[in-house]
Order: sequence, then C-alpha cells, then structure tokens
Amino acid sequence: MPITLTGFKAYDIRFPTSRSLAGSDAMNPAPDYSAAYVILYTDSPQGLAGHGLTFTIGRGTEICVAAINACAPLIIGRTLESLTADMAQFWRVMTGDSQLRWLGPEKGIIHLATAAVVNAVWDLYAKVEDKPLWKLLVDMPPEQLVSCIDFRYITNVLTPADALDLLRRQAPTKAQREAEMLEQGFPAYTTGAGWSGYSDEQMRLYCREARANGWQHFKLKVGLSLEDDLRRASIMRTEIGAESTLMLDANQVWEVNEAIVIMQRLAAFDPLWIEEPTSPDDILGHAAIARAVAPIRVATGEHVQNRIIFKQLFQANAIGICQIDACRVGGVNEVLAILLMAAKFGIPVCPHAGGVGLCEYVQHLSLFDYIALSGSLENRMIEYTPHLHEHFVHPAIVKGGRYVPPDAPGYSVTMYPSSIAAFSYPNGSAWADERS
Amino acid sequence: MPITLTGFKAYDIRFPTSRSLAGSDAMNPAPDYSAAYVILYTDSPQGLAGHGLTFTIGRGTEICVAAINACAPLIIGRTLESLTADMAQFWRVMTGDSQLRWLGPEKGIIHLATAAVVNAVWDLYAKVEDKPLWKLLVDMPPEQLVSCIDFRYITNVLTPADALDLLRRQAPTKAQREAEMLEQGFPAYTTGAGWSGYSDEQMRLYCREARANGWQHFKLKVGLSLEDDLRRASIMRTEIGAESTLMLDANQVWEVNEAIVIMQRLAAFDPLWIEEPTSPDDILGHAAIARAVAPIRVATGEHVQNRIIFKQLFQANAIGICQIDACRVGGVNEVLAILLMAAKFGIPVCPHAGGVGLCEYVQHLSLFDYIALSGSLENRMIEYTPHLHEHFVHPAIVKGGRYVPPDAPGYSVTMYPSSIAAFSYPNGSAWADERS
Repeated sequence: MPITLTGFKAYDIRFPTSRSLAGSDAMNPAPDYSAAYVILYTDSPQGLAGHGLTFTIGRGTEICVAAINACAPLIIGRTLESLTADMAQFWRVMTGDSQLRWLGPEKGIIHLATAAVVNAVWDLYAKVEDKPLWKLLVDMPPEQLVSCIDFRYITNVLTPADALDLLRRQAPTKAQREAEMLEQGFPAYTTGAGWSGYSDEQMRLYCREARANGWQHFKLKVGLSLEDDLRRASIMRTEIGAESTLMLDANQVWEVNEAIVIMQRLAAFDPLWIEEPTSPDDILGHAAIARAVAPIRVATGEHVQNRIIFKQLFQANAIGICQIDACRVGGVNEVLAILLMAAKFGIPVCPHAGGVGLCEYVQHLSLFDYIALSGSLENRMIEYTPHLHEHFVHPAIVKGGRYVPPDAPGYSVTMYPSSIAAFSYPNGSAWADERS
Repeated sequence: MPITLTGFKAYDIRFPTSRSLAGSDAMNPAPDYSAAYVILYTDSPQGLAGHGLTFTIGRGTEICVAAINACAPLIIGRTLESLTADMAQFWRVMTGDSQLRWLGPEKGIIHLATAAVVNAVWDLYAKVEDKPLWKLLVDMPPEQLVSCIDFRYITNVLTPADALDLLRRQAPTKAQREAEMLEQGFPAYTTGAGWSGYSDEQMRLYCREARANGWQHFKLKVGLSLEDDLRRASIMRTEIGAESTLMLDANQVWEVNEAIVIMQRLAAFDPLWIEEPTSPDDILGHAAIARAVAPIRVATGEHVQNRIIFKQLFQANAIGICQIDACRVGGVNEVLAILLMAAKFGIPVCPHAGGVGLCEYVQHLSLFDYIALSGSLENRMIEYTPHLHEHFVHPAIVKGGRYVPPDAPGYSVTMYPSSIAAFSYPNGSAWADERS
C-alpha cells in the first residue's frame, strides 16, 4: 500500500538556554537554542509520521515556521513512493518553485525550511524501511545513492560518474567498517567545556570532568580579546594535556588579515584547526587564511549556505576540515552532494553539531560517510554538546568520547509531544515566566 | 525637534503579472511581481513616514513580511537623528542581532527584510532633508558618506581610507556632472521587449516600438533551448540594428561548462554582456566563464546576496558588469560599500531594475555613482521595464531612453494607499477573482 502525505504541522520550539550561557560564543552571546519543527502526517496504518527540524537560536524561529508553511505544501498529497522513486527530482521540486526560489536561491531562511521538510521526508522513508537513516543510506547501491542527488551547479567538479566511482571504491569493504562502528562507535569531540561565557574556573572544572569521561578532543571558543583568547587557550591546553586535541572556534568575528595575525599567536597552543575565522561567505578570504596559518587547518561549514559555496571552498583549497550542517544546507540530498565533493577533494568531514537536534542528525551522516564513502577516520570527529538530548525519543548517545550508532528507525529528531508542548513559543509552559 | 520612530506596518502586496507573462524568463516562467512593503511611522508634525520595500515574485512574500515584523522593532522608539548620527552603527544594529543573524547571516529573507527597513529609514531621512535620496548622498562630504558604511569583512580590499580617496578624487567635479544629469538624464536599457514568454511577433513589435521611442540598448532573455536562443537573438539583433547594444540574460539556468559552450554560439550576435550565466553563488564559476567568453562581459548581481560575495567577484575578475540590486543586499548602506568596491576595481555598475519599485530605487544609486564616485558613463546603463510604475506617487520617468533624475524628496517607493489596498494579498480587490 502506498503511503500518502496527508498534511503537516510546523512548530516554533524554543529552549531558554540563554539563562545558563551554555552555547555562548564571540558572535552569539546569548542564544536560546530553538527549532522550527515539522511533522509530516500520513495515512499509514501504523500511524507513521516524518519529523524534521531546522536549528535556530531564538528570535526569528517564527519566520522559519512561516517558510515551512510556504514550502511543505509542495509535497502534501504526494505518495512517499513517488518521492523516493526519484529523490533528485523530489529535491528539485522542493528547491525549484520559481516564486519561492527568488527568496534564496538555496540559502537563508527558505533553505533552512527546505531542510526541515526534506529531512522529515527522509525520516519517514527510513521509518518505513525500518532502518536508522545511516543504515538506509549505507545499504543503498551506489546507483541509487547517486540518483538522490541534484547535480545542478556542481558538474564542473563532480559528475554522476565521479560520484559512482567514489562510492564503488568503498563498496566492497562497507561491511567491515559497519561492524567496526557498531563495535566501537564514531569519535566525538566536546564543545561543552569552552563556551565564551564560562569563567576560567568553570572551564577547568568541565575539562577535568570531560577527561574523566574519556574525552580526548576539545574545542575552545576564541574571538574575545587577544588577552582572553591567549589565557583561555593556555588554560585549556594545560588541562587537557599535550596528547589531547585542541580546536579553536572564532565564530566569524575576525577580518581576514586580523585572523592571520591572531592565529600567529594562538599557534603556540598547537590547535588542529581554526573554525569560522571570518565570514562564511568569504571563500577567497578563507583561502588566504589557510595559506597563512598552515599546517593549522581552516574549518568552516555551520553557516555555509549550500553545495555551491562548499564546492568553491574545496576548489580554492580554502578549508582543511568540512563542517557540514544537517539543516543549514537543504537536507540529506544536498548533504550527500557535499560529502561526495569532500571525498573527491580528500577533505575530512567533521559535522557541526550541538544546538538542539544536531547531534541526533549528524551521527547518521558521519556513519554513512565513513562506512560507504571516505573509509577513513583520520581527522574525523563529530561535535558533541551535552544539552537538550532529553527531549528526543531516541537521543544521541556518547560513551567514552564516541557516538554509539543509533538503532531506532528514522533520522532521530522525533521529539516527545510533551517537550513540543512545553517549549512551544510563546505559549508553552517553559515561557510562562516571560509572559507574566 | 527630534523625530521619533513610533511604529511600523508591513504589507504583503502582489501584482498578478503572471497573467501577461511580462517578467518571464528561463528560471521564472510566471512571476507575480510583489513587494514586502514597510511604512515607518513617526511623530513628525508634518506626518512624515519612511517607506521601503523589498521586491519578491509572489509566493513567499508573507515570509518577508514576517521577517520585517521581526527586524523592524530593532529601531522602533529610536529617534531618526540617533540613527543618522552614526549610520554605520545603525546598519550594525539592523544586521547584528545575534539571534536573527543566525538566519542568514546577511543573506536571503532576513537580509531582504533588512533592506526594506533600512531603505525606509533612508527614505525618511531624505524626506526630512527635503531632497531626493541621490541628492542627499551627492551632497554629503566624503567623510560623512564613509561613516555610513560598515566595513566588516571587506577591509582586505577596501578600507575607510581607500573609500575617502575614491570620493575625494571626484568631489571637485561633482557639480558639473550633476548639471549634466539634470540636463540629459542617465542612460537606460530596456528588458521589456525580450521576455522569454513573448512570441517572435511580440518581440519584433516591442523592439520596433522601443526604437521609435529612442531606445538604443536592449536585453534579451536566453537560456531556453539553444535553437530558441539563437533564433530569438537573431530576431532581436536584426530588429535593433548593428548600432544598438544587445545584452543577454540566462537567469542562472546553465552549468559553468554549458555557459561557455552556448556563449560560443551566441557570440555571433555581438552581445555586450551575458548576465547570470550560472548560480549567483559561484564566484569561481563566473571567473571561469569570464575568461572563456571575453571580450563579452559577464554580468551578475540581482541575486548576489551581500558585499562579501561582490568583493570576491571583483577580486577574482569574475564580472565585467556589476548589477547591484537595491533591496537584495541590505539597503543603501551596503550598496554604498559595493559601489565603492566597484569603483576601486574599475567595474561599471548597471543596476538591476524592473520588477516593482526597483526602477524607482536604483535611479538614485546610479546618479550618485556617476556624480560622486565613478565619474564615467562608459558601459553604464540602468535597466528599465515599463510595468507597475503607476502605483508610485513619484514614479521613475524615462524619456528618449534616459532616466530623468527624480526631484521629489525621498527614495521614490512611496505607493498610493489605494494601490496598497487593492493589491494586498490575499484580501485586496485585485485578488478577488482567485478567492472566488
């Protein structure tokens, strides 16, 4: 029996994280981690629904909800089978409505909303197939995976034939890497000890706790004053020891030349990468910084709008780490295109996570990438922060600094109805104080 | 007496242009030219208000209205004087709210909304100063103009000192160019004869009409089948004669390599430029096309999201024509930054217009550019289409193929209340048919 998409509902869900300064950085002093959340309803006898979200940080989530309300109708009334039979065409339908396309194209709020809906379709697809999303992707023959991708605007660096070659190269050895992942999990790093709003004492405490729990890779927020950056980097390097990995994250606050000068000082603490040194739109700027700070790698991605900017970051040798975001770009289909380009250029992918729902999402992407595409764990880690997992029916699980592969069917962002109700903005109970 | 911004109202205004196929092109087969429109109310004794709009093409305009409702409150309650005293800081306030910034940053819907509000403030400022916007800008001392610009992320190609030098270079001769413009007007080109939805016969008719009315520069929509493109280009070149200028516009439908191959064929019709050959995000792609099709120039801009992408288009020698849009980037302040970079790199600016309100807006920008900054008319023209001007209190006026400098105070996009009422979506009288 085909399953028909019968309707949808979008929610504005906000968590008052600004009250604790968890998530604070140089650009975002007080975020309220939020989600524009969508449920795609179906006529499946089992009551299956597709759940998707796009991550936001407070004000403006209502605009993303308005955008979901504008683009979700493009597929309501369709059968799931008609979408999964030609996933590239489905994605073109979602991004190709000419009137909505004007509002991007393929960037900003309309693309964030597209991601929520696209990911909800993939969630539903995986639930119907009774597999976690990563397993659905890993089990697809290379030809089927390639057929999920819209190659528009990237054929000058990646053709369907290139993509097939990359997937076929790793296909014979997929099973052993899948077994390895189920046994050992995927390496993670923690951002939870280095938020810019934390005191030196808090940082020391959280670093010690994290080391005791098996963490070996740590990220520090920089981009405050040079004095603060140097002191905090010194504290963290001392606490984590020379054998642990330190990553730095400036959250876009520097000019190109400023980034180069400051990184000459911060190089003393032997960071693996400098993340978001400047505007995410500045491909040539990142390339200039990358040349100047090597062998420290330049990393970016959480604000990179689509596959076209990633394409150029690869072409220009502008990044040494690709930090893909599961819902900044247009959902699973576009993520696959970017993972393939990263593999072609030999750039490790370390997805952006944290926030709300991002850890749940990206574990699937890294598992697929390792098992079916890159075949390597070198310089690959998934970001982790400890917040807000309790709202998900199947939360991401990290043990000893490694993600445990999810086994529940779907894409892992299905929230408890009670959490949706309590944190709905502005009428949920969590926001009652601010209303009174 | 200081003037305080006391409130605002945003409108969803749509014109049913898809019924005539005016505005049709290869990417946008049936646009309904629309505007997310904002009025900033004040306590001025004369009842002055600031009017701004961002141009859209139908569905999704309601999302831009939601975004205006999210960002306009950032300045409500402020005095106009507190904003105009530090215009760069005003712009940072509009683009720097950390929670809203996540939704871009500085791109897509949140930036379109920012443009509407920023331009409304400039409209109010010019009305208070009793000058058309172009004259307000032309009369500013270089230091004051430079103080309007947020140089974030562009200092590696343009510093405040560079900007001052560029403006001072032309300052002594401003008066003569202003007199020239008032006497002769600014050169225009017409897009109104070459929409993709027009039949060959319509094209011939409109070309003849336009020539009879003094037009010398014509744009043709391409990006249909190669056969159609060649036939239509041949018709237009025949109709306009060898002495007129022909420009081609592909509206982003080609891949990089495809653009190069097709332009080898279309070169036979001696076009001045090929506009939007591929994705507006593809800086390196435009650079590759530009190298391959020279001396035909590559043009883009109507979908270029901000100054940071323009910066790189200039750095990479990717464009030979800069087609700035008055409300795709974040309003007058960011336009000034882009005009200055274009002047530094010696790239002519030919603004994107047409749509609704764009001709009204950009005439001010080109007049300022010529009089105070570039000092040249070589390869400079403003786009013109004949539609929808009747809704503006002070519509753009073109005579003999040249824009007549506007003399009414403000930024020229104040609409008649009757037009706002009739075309408000979905409840205006113009949409009654589609409701019934």
